[in-house]
Amino acid sequence: MHRYRSHTCGELRASDVGTDVRLSGWLHNRRDLGGILFIDLRDHYGLVQLVARPGTPANEALSHLTKESVVRVDGRVSARGAENVNPELPTGEIEIEVTGVEVLGSSGQLPFTINTDDGVNEERRLEYRFLDLRRERMHRNIMLRTAVIAAIRQKMTALGFNEMATPILTAASPEGARDFLVPSRLNPGKFYALPQAPQQFKQLLMIAGFDRYFQIAPCFRDEDARADRSPGEFYQLDVEMSFVEQEDVFRPVERLMTELFEEFGGGRHVTSPFPRIPFREAMLTYGSDKPDLRARLELVDISDVFEGSGFKAFAGRHVRALPVPSVQDQPRKFFDQLGEYAVEQGAKGLAWVRVGDDGALSGPIAKFLTQENVGVLTERLALKPGHAVFFGAGDFDEVSKIMGAVRVEAARRSGHFEEDVFRFCWIVDFPMYEKDPETGRIDFSHNPFSMPQGGLEALRTQDPLDILGWQYDIVCNGVELSSGAIRNHRPDIMFKAFEIAGYDRETVEREFSGMLRAFQYGAPPHGGIAPGVDRIVMLLADEPNIRETIAFPLNQNAQDLLMGAPAEVEDARLKELHIGLYKGPAKPTPYKPTT
Amino acid sequence: MHRYRSHTCGELRASDVGTDVRLSGWLHNRRDLGGILFIDLRDHYGLVQLVARPGTPANEALSHLTKESVVRVDGRVSARGAENVNPELPTGEIEIEVTGVEVLGSSGQLPFTINTDDGVNEERRLEYRFLDLRRERMHRNIMLRTAVIAAIRQKMTALGFNEMATPILTAASPEGARDFLVPSRLNPGKFYALPQAPQQFKQLLMIAGFDRYFQIAPCFRDEDARADRSPGEFYQLDVEMSFVEQEDVFRPVERLMTELFEEFGGGRHVTSPFPRIPFREAMLTYGSDKPDLRARLELVDISDVFEGSGFKAFAGRHVRALPVPSVQDQPRKFFDQLGEYAVEQGAKGLAWVRVGDDGALSGPIAKFLTQENVGVLTERLALKPGHAVFFGAGDFDEVSKIMGAVRVEAARRSGHFEEDVFRFCWIVDFPMYEKDPETGRIDFSHNPFSMPQGGLEALRTQDPLDILGWQYDIVCNGVELSSGAIRNHRPDIMFKAFEIAGYDRETVEREFSGMLRAFQYGAPPHGGIAPGVDRIVMLLADEPNIRETIAFPLNQNAQDLLMGAPAEVEDARLKELHIGLYKGPAKPTPYKPTT
Repeated sequence: MHRYRSHTCGELRASDVGTDVRLSGWLHNRRDLGGILFIDLRDHYGLVQLVARPGTPANEALSHLTKESVVRVDGRVSARGAENVNPELPTGEIEIEVTGVEVLGSSGQLPFTINTDDGVNEERRLEYRFLDLRRERMHRNIMLRTAVIAAIRQKMTALGFNEMATPILTAASPEGARDFLVPSRLNPGKFYALPQAPQQFKQLLMIAGFDRYFQIAPCFRDEDARADRSPGEFYQLDVEMSFVEQEDVFRPVERLMTELFEEFGGGRHVTSPFPRIPFREAMLTYGSDKPDLRARLELVDISDVFEGSGFKAFAGRHVRALPVPSVQDQPRKFFDQLGEYAVEQGAKGLAWVRVGDDGALSGPIAKFLTQENVGVLTERLALKPGHAVFFGAGDFDEVSKIMGAVRVEAARRSGHFEEDVFRFCWIVDFPMYEKDPETGRIDFSHNPFSMPQGGLEALRTQDPLDILGWQYDIVCNGVELSSGAIRNHRPDIMFKAFEIAGYDRETVEREFSGMLRAFQYGAPPHGGIAPGVDRIVMLLADEPNIRETIAFPLNQNAQDLLMGAPAEVEDARLKELHIGLYKGPAKPTPYKPTT
Repeated sequence: MHRYRSHTCGELRASDVGTDVRLSGWLHNRRDLGGILFIDLRDHYGLVQLVARPGTPANEALSHLTKESVVRVDGRVSARGAENVNPELPTGEIEIEVTGVEVLGSSGQLPFTINTDDGVNEERRLEYRFLDLRRERMHRNIMLRTAVIAAIRQKMTALGFNEMATPILTAASPEGARDFLVPSRLNPGKFYALPQAPQQFKQLLMIAGFDRYFQIAPCFRDEDARADRSPGEFYQLDVEMSFVEQEDVFRPVERLMTELFEEFGGGRHVTSPFPRIPFREAMLTYGSDKPDLRARLELVDISDVFEGSGFKAFAGRHVRALPVPSVQDQPRKFFDQLGEYAVEQGAKGLAWVRVGDDGALSGPIAKFLTQENVGVLTERLALKPGHAVFFGAGDFDEVSKIMGAVRVEAARRSGHFEEDVFRFCWIVDFPMYEKDPETGRIDFSHNPFSMPQGGLEALRTQDPLDILGWQYDIVCNGVELSSGAIRNHRPDIMFKAFEIAGYDRETVEREFSGMLRAFQYGAPPHGGIAPGVDRIVMLLADEPNIRETIAFPLNQNAQDLLMGAPAEVEDARLKELHIGLYKGPAKPTPYKPTT
């Protein structure tokens, strides 16, 4: 028989009754019923019940053992009595009559309980992460992460993509966040940077001719912690393809996401195909370029209705309406609480009306609406008895932000929110440029390296503010998983695009010499995307805190409490790296996107 | 039709003749035969021949285009005449009559040729790596690497292992080499280290109960460059398993390696099962713990034969013989050249005899052998006519080193070397301790964290120099792919093992507090291994230089010539990281394994 186990703790069934077995695992729980010990033995694969009769050496050995000790037991599989069968447990029909026990690793006093959630704080959990990971929820989350990443790799490979690792010790990247730096011992006074993303390398791989690349890429940003991003390192599914247009990128990514979320989403449905929503339409209809489409309500621009109106709150301003059907049974509190919510979002208040059984409008602002207003709104918003309409007025961006939030909240509170679904969408047609409201200066809106729609011709002939980019976001349930773009692979178009934003040729050549050089030796059209792996796992695991889905995360202060990182280093080591500590005032460097 | 291509450049066949197609790719080569242009168009998937007739716009467009420009062509597939079929090329039966051309990305003057190897130096290739990677050999190597790593992942997952990423920003590790350090902005004066290996994390994952772990793990060592290790970062297939003995680790790894090398070894056979060779036997028989078993010759210890001999060169010394069969046709030069080779290895000379047709010995030292010597050697070495025997005498280690090298060289020169085979072996039973010949002090031979064979009992009762560890190496064709071990998971055994090597309890507790703490809460027996991915790919690709198998390697000076890393950094950035440059003398820190 094997030194440690003939079976795992999760695999024995009624058909194994009578078999002599050897098991190894952790002492998960122990009950003493009149001297008989019932023990749950746990390993990676499951739980199994051990029985040790009074007066046996096994009983003696197991009665003194602390929880979470590791033991090897020998015994015989026996059937549980019908009244003791545990249908919750795959091994619930059997138990093991223990005949021999060997302690393989004993446990001291635990800093928190493993088999129940005792509400211990996160810092303590991270300090003893090796114990925290034994807990059922964490174990399940980490295994979900493992399964999701393995599935991504298999699916991407099946879709014809080649995984390639790009360097981790590399040059500073123009991604806009802070780099982590690594002093070079062999090159005094010089530093590597850890990659914020393998953006340049994946484009170089396209220029090198590899056609379809992906990588589960470790990325590093020296940022402060956020709930959905671990400080320090995170992973993205980095993707790039040659000889493609936007829809060619969407196709495999949409297929991957659909399969992945169907497979690992715990039964939540994926609505596919994903709608393509132009940026301006998203802002207008959802008040956001990260719309949560589970909220089944839409905003409507009704500014024109009040253009010359006597209703001062609306007249001449941007006005958006949110019609909400079937609220006839909602009490006044529903309206008041939504109003409070709007104020929390920065509104001065929330105007509303409701439609009575007779089609007449009532509510705080009903009296300001003319008969004509009512007629137009009834038709435009398809109002029926039982509907309510909420209004936001002000400038476009402010109204979008507030009414976008009210839209989701109203849907949640009025039964227009679908819980068990993943609603993806593509946000497309982002504008290339925007005008700074103060300086009037034209600058890039998003990614300066995207190909403008219409190419060089558009840059030459169109109003910059009308030019759209081949740039897109993928959004799921209000979470932005990634931006992506068809890249600008032509130096002539790149110089022109930067010229419009006020950068002369020399500046562009100096700042982006590496990529520009590569583009000059036969670059294919290419584009890609890089969905965040951590965010995908968070959505699938339904965990709002990213650290619950990572085995060994840094804490909010970017510290590893388990291994004691970061730590002080001997001065001699630093000298060898040609650096010393600087204890003066840390004057922060201004950081902004390189554009 | 798709904007860029209806087909790739590798997929058209005779059955496609008559089809209108669109292709995109790089202008690989161009020949002008009486005004007709023949062009090889290349993409990731293959090569296809384009034909542009004189006087057509396509001919005009293609005649001016520089090599390596990217074009889209439209055309019709036509059959090549029988005399023009190229059987070397999958698309060799057809060509494309070009009707339309669009330049997608033009190329300037190339720094070296892509379609032939012009012997350009490596620095230049690395500077223009995106072009170098277009060359057929590099493209094939990188794709081999991709395929090998994807296969490793699939096979390991199928074998029940779970891939988990461990932190890259972590604490300094006791692996014995220099760490790369990363200053922390949020924790002034403190530094992360990049992992030399995820050794501690994988053991923590076992303690956390994950049972079978693997990772294609990026590892970082601040070392000077070697042919088989890239400076900076490298990858290992990191593996750890719980509730296992040595053979339980060997089984899946042996299966993986056999399948991998059969699948990607280009037809070279894998001899499986892999022999288990105890360390002392390996040193004796092969003169090395990294034996190249393709050399089908073995060393024999014959020290006893000359114990009281009058032959001063051998008497009372350690003497090893290398019998080589079937050298009757070798000229004197064979013996002389092997002698020169032995001298290059550090020998003073190389004694030898050969066996004549009559069984009599001749050669430089024949006259020093007594009749009795000859009788014993003939029997012990199974000497027959046509055999030769080479001799090494001196101290054990010196003779091992020299005769180990002579063994392989003699096999190569005498037809006893198998070329087309992967001969793996496991080296087992490494001694736990060794005695420093100068100080007489007992210290660990290899890994202090391995479990000693016989456990606590052995440590208490045996001569330390007789104690073996559960520690092993996997070797292929003379290349060590990895060390591995069953770990010491018991604090009591660990304290005792270190005590023998002269470390008191406080030192051990201070140096290894993290792991010791984890072992105190129920640690399972566990063990693992970590074969080098780069070395595996080098063996499969038959490339002696590791950089030929990595897309973007650092050069020998740990520089990335393409991206310009490492680079100088603004002083303000350094201040923000609480460091400054140190320009004094770099007094090197003494580095040695922590043991």
